[in-house]
Amino acid sequence: MNTFGNIFRFTGFGESHGEAVGGIIDGMPAGFRIDFDAIDAEMERRRPGSSPLVTTRKEPDKIRFLSGIRDGITLGTPIAFMIENTNVRSSDYDILEHAFRPNHADYTYFAKYGIRDHRGGGRASARETAGRVAAGAIAKQYLASRGITVTARPASIGGIEIRSERDMERAEEAIREARARRDTLGGTVECIVSGAPAGLGEPVFGKLQAMLASAMMSINAAKGFEYGDGFASAASEGSEQTDEFYIDNGHVRTRTNHSGGIQGGISNGEDIRFRVAFKPIATLPRPLDTVTDTMEETTVEVGGRHDICVVPRAVPVVEAMAAMTILDALLLARL
Amino acid sequence: MNTFGNIFRFTGFGESHGEAVGGIIDGMPAGFRIDFDAIDAEMERRRPGSSPLVTTRKEPDKIRFLSGIRDGITLGTPIAFMIENTNVRSSDYDILEHAFRPNHADYTYFAKYGIRDHRGGGRASARETAGRVAAGAIAKQYLASRGITVTARPASIGGIEIRSERDMERAEEAIREARARRDTLGGTVECIVSGAPAGLGEPVFGKLQAMLASAMMSINAAKGFEYGDGFASAASEGSEQTDEFYIDNGHVRTRTNHSGGIQGGISNGEDIRFRVAFKPIATLPRPLDTVTDTMEETTVEVGGRHDICVVPRAVPVVEAMAAMTILDALLLARL
Amino acid sequence: MNTFGNIFRFTGFGESHGEAVGGIIDGMPAGFRIDFDAIDAEMERRRPGSSPLVTTRKEPDKIRFLSGIRDGITLGTPIAFMIENTNVRSSDYDILEHAFRPNHADYTYFAKYGIRDHRGGGRASARETAGRVAAGAIAKQYLASRGITVTARPASIGGIEIRSERDMERAEEAIREARARRDTLGGTVECIVSGAPAGLGEPVFGKLQAMLASAMMSINAAKGFEYGDGFASAASEGSEQTDEFYIDNGHVRTRTNHSGGIQGGISNGEDIRFRVAFKPIATLPRPLDTVTDTMEETTVEVGGRHDICVVPRAVPVVEAMAAMTILDALLLARL
Amino acid sequence: MNTFGNIFRFTGFGESHGEAVGGIIDGMPAGFRIDFDAIDAEMERRRPGSSPLVTTRKEPDKIRFLSGIRDGITLGTPIAFMIENTNVRSSDYDILEHAFRPNHADYTYFAKYGIRDHRGGGRASARETAGRVAAGAIAKQYLASRGITVTARPASIGGIEIRSERDMERAEEAIREARARRDTLGGTVECIVSGAPAGLGEPVFGKLQAMLASAMMSINAAKGFEYGDGFASAASEGSEQTDEFYIDNGHVRTRTNHSGGIQGGISNGEDIRFRVAFKPIATLPRPLDTVTDTMEETTVEVGGRHDICVVPRAVPVVEAMAAMTILDALLLARL
Repeated sequence: MNTFGNIFRFTGFGESHGEAVGGIIDGMPAGFRIDFDAIDAEMERRRPGSSPLVTTRKEPDKIRFLSGIRDGITLGTPIAFMIENTNVRSSDYDILEHAFRPNHADYTYFAKYGIRDHRGGGRASARETAGRVAAGAIAKQYLASRGITVTARPASIGGIEIRSERDMERAEEAIREARARRDTLGGTVECIVSGAPAGLGEPVFGKLQAMLASAMMSINAAKGFEYGDGFASAASEGSEQTDEFYIDNGHVRTRTNHSGGIQGGISNGEDIRFRVAFKPIATLPRPLDTVTDTMEETTVEVGGRHDICVVPRAVPVVEAMAAMTILDALLLARL
Repeated sequence: MNTFGNIFRFTGFGESHGEAVGGIIDGMPAGFRIDFDAIDAEMERRRPGSSPLVTTRKEPDKIRFLSGIRDGITLGTPIAFMIENTNVRSSDYDILEHAFRPNHADYTYFAKYGIRDHRGGGRASARETAGRVAAGAIAKQYLASRGITVTARPASIGGIEIRSERDMERAEEAIREARARRDTLGGTVECIVSGAPAGLGEPVFGKLQAMLASAMMSINAAKGFEYGDGFASAASEGSEQTDEFYIDNGHVRTRTNHSGGIQGGISNGEDIRFRVAFKPIATLPRPLDTVTDTMEETTVEVGGRHDICVVPRAVPVVEAMAAMTILDALLLARL
Repeated sequence: MNTFGNIFRFTGFGESHGEAVGGIIDGMPAGFRIDFDAIDAEMERRRPGSSPLVTTRKEPDKIRFLSGIRDGITLGTPIAFMIENTNVRSSDYDILEHAFRPNHADYTYFAKYGIRDHRGGGRASARETAGRVAAGAIAKQYLASRGITVTARPASIGGIEIRSERDMERAEEAIREARARRDTLGGTVECIVSGAPAGLGEPVFGKLQAMLASAMMSINAAKGFEYGDGFASAASEGSEQTDEFYIDNGHVRTRTNHSGGIQGGISNGEDIRFRVAFKPIATLPRPLDTVTDTMEETTVEVGGRHDICVVPRAVPVVEAMAAMTILDALLLARL
Repeated sequence: MNTFGNIFRFTGFGESHGEAVGGIIDGMPAGFRIDFDAIDAEMERRRPGSSPLVTTRKEPDKIRFLSGIRDGITLGTPIAFMIENTNVRSSDYDILEHAFRPNHADYTYFAKYGIRDHRGGGRASARETAGRVAAGAIAKQYLASRGITVTARPASIGGIEIRSERDMERAEEAIREARARRDTLGGTVECIVSGAPAGLGEPVFGKLQAMLASAMMSINAAKGFEYGDGFASAASEGSEQTDEFYIDNGHVRTRTNHSGGIQGGISNGEDIRFRVAFKPIATLPRPLDTVTDTMEETTVEVGGRHDICVVPRAVPVVEAMAAMTILDALLLARL
């Protein structure tokens, strides 16, 4: 279950304080020239410390490719890659060897496996998404060569809708204030896929929105997914939701896009548009009631360096998962 | 892609105006006694005409089981079943042989396959969900034998939140009004899974919320999915979202359940709680602009008998998909 | 695990003495005109009583298609079909309600499921292959439209290699003799796929020979698979096995075909050639030592009408499985 | 298609002259203590140069584990590992940049991907099996802890059946002679799985012999698979093949084991026994006719250091694939 996709498949690995994180991409079309600088740029977007809004930990996130590429060209064989875990301060986590952090995966991993790597969240850490971003960067490049772009952006932070630079400044201020009062914030990310042909998505259980929802809900801290008018459409009337068709230069188009580019589970050629909700960062720098793996009640206060809001760093992860999903759908549809 | 699940797998078939709909359940545990009356009761809940709120078409939805069960006991072999399509008035759809209905799957199926069954929506019709409800009814029975219940309910209709009988009366009135002005309504369904053990869900891409989101977004007209505090959590602060642990009679419990029973993608033993948003019914009884399969602009007005709001009939479909997902997760976890 | 294939997928169902056998084909390309007479002809080849060499039971094997086809054209949606079980004499099997027939699946199904349908072998009966032949017939038609033919033939029966009509007569005589002395015979089937393009098969675990071997070894009574020079190559020298390349009218060809049309797991454009070994029919009309489901030793003698040698009826099943495998590989390779 | 298995899944990567080979094991049960020395011992068995019979290239095959294990204990998370490619003499292969070696994957990879890594066979090289042996060694250890052993041995080399030490000496002599006359030899490997419980294997398409056949035919140079009496049974009579049941200390046993431990696709508790045929090594040190990727005829003579017979090094690979298959079947059966 660490594999994502059908034809374009990504299998990830890695604990946050283990040797490395990374993965294997299987099903990448052969003969494609990789832009390694573009991959590094994506990694930099996800990296902690990449903006004043995010944690100050430094992770160089240098990718080493192990197979599947020769002279920069994909061979059609599996592309394996790894990113060493270099900057791990495991001692920060000693207090957590036996106590479960509330709202984290600590207890559920213990319940499921009877064992867990308590250092930095182990496999459940956001560190794992580094592999997704690297794989997604390759998918994104290939899609771009086919005229398909994938672009995500912060849509709201702590309840502030972000539609302008000014809104973003207000959101940054809200993050600073939350940090000051030792609290954290949630938010939403919006993603738009442009240039995708009609015909992506496989009825009935492989509807494009089902593939995208599964991809997005697999991201840490994601709590909701909606596409097109989403939850707002549930409070609306049919007459407000109708995307009438017309012909534009010989192409079928819709005058509006309440559908979010997907009808009957299949893309219709309009922009594919969806939103993902993220909860506030679970790690609160204050004492919280909890229990231990020997069934005793205790209190835990987590130190370490942590983000206040996951949204800025989630943006490239949303793009990566969207790119892998769309490329997989493209190959499934044999387009 | 007409198969759902990993260990408990359902493969569906059927167009709304073809011979029959139905499916094959693979992976059902052997030796389980089926309650056929309970299946019929679920089918009745989904049936058009089962309440004054829904369309008046009559579909007997009589299930014929073809394999996998002997003397009422499951054999561990595939359970195939079919429901004949008896009450089909295909002539209602003659106008749609060449014109695409807006907001339906007509155009996208044509774009994908170059052919479509225009009668009643074909494979994209809600008729297809009859098979899901039958399969889900079997999953639900098995879960009940393990102490796990799956219960969905209308949570809102046309913007009216439903928390009481009175709210439901207001919602019914809203449906009648919408029908009168030839419009349709959206709404949301809430589902709660109680009694599920800790340990369901498979990191990283098989997180329980990813499995549930994929299941729900595969339902016709679904536009959004959220679990726990969902989109509301995106506008909240971490201190409002913390589910602190305590020991209750030797069991690990959380004092609150903002998490919706899932942490790190794995169930924690609390109620699993999620919501699905449905758009208003796409079929509007009024003339709409559209195009034909020969790329000409035209106007279409769809007759036939149609629902105003999908929510009442969606409730058993949500339960069915949830039951199949939870049973699959249970078997995957070898619990 | 009742599903075969990746893109072209067949999910089968049915016990020999249940209501029906059949299945669902998912992934069949849309817009293909089905030749129903050709399907019936394939069913007739597999049917008991179709030759003096096989059992005299009559199974009409009338196929009813339930979905996925309209006016004889495939829709791209799942094709479900069923074949009623009409000629079942379950009383023949009363003796087997508690005793396990040696060399059958009786004991292992009981060990696995704790329950079994003892009538006629249940799910483990060769009756199940009727569904495969129907699905394979559709795959075969589609391949033929692409210039690919799949042809199997009896290669040996009871140790007699069959290279001529005369050999076949000797084999028929051997079958009559075996019947007379209440014994049964094994044999082999050879299959040749002609016209397949180079490029079928997916390294590493999806090698074309691995896909074919899995398909063939899933047939009842199959005990071995080999392709190209197979087991004979294991006793040979490299200099006897070399298929040198040359250019023929601008195409790469090999002068010999020891490789059986597959190199490195991928088809090379030459004939794909393989053999399947079948054991003698397990049902011997004589008393045999066995045990019951209550752990008592007993003796069993099976009545009923049974074949002497599986080879004649296995030929269309081998073709069906080969056709489904090659079509799946063709779609996987996006050719 | 570089992934093997259902619950216990291995995804491999690596070209022979790339950076590294390795893979990711997903689905390994948590809490199991790994014996790293035992893994190294398996790697040593597969290593070139490990016996006078095999090539003299030295590959240290030092495994580096990247995730999924902490303090020697499995975490239940993916186990990634890599083996650096250190001893690569790519210049040996310059002659092959454009010419296809007969009987290798050179032409078919080119036909499929339009690109290939010609150095040492690239992804199609036997080097790839190093990853399988490492993953299989872990599966083998886990099976051993459950009382299940997997043991393969050379069964024939160049037509010499190996039943004793003396036979092995004759086989070694045959290899030396073949080397002297610049030829190569084929052979067979027999494998026995002891201690496996009844109930492994999933009808219909997941029959245990189908899983094993797929696993074995995915190994380089494998040309055939048979289980139990295999191809010999095809030339035999039913009365010679009957495994009668009896009760032994409360357990169901068979007096003989022509079935090879599998009946109806499901293990019956007896030894699981099968054979794999391997063709002679394809690399012949003599000039051979071939063609180039620009469609010209030419002659090629491959230098480098190569084995004469694949059988000695194939033995641990057969064991590794068998161990992974049996463990997967065990987990699928929830045993």
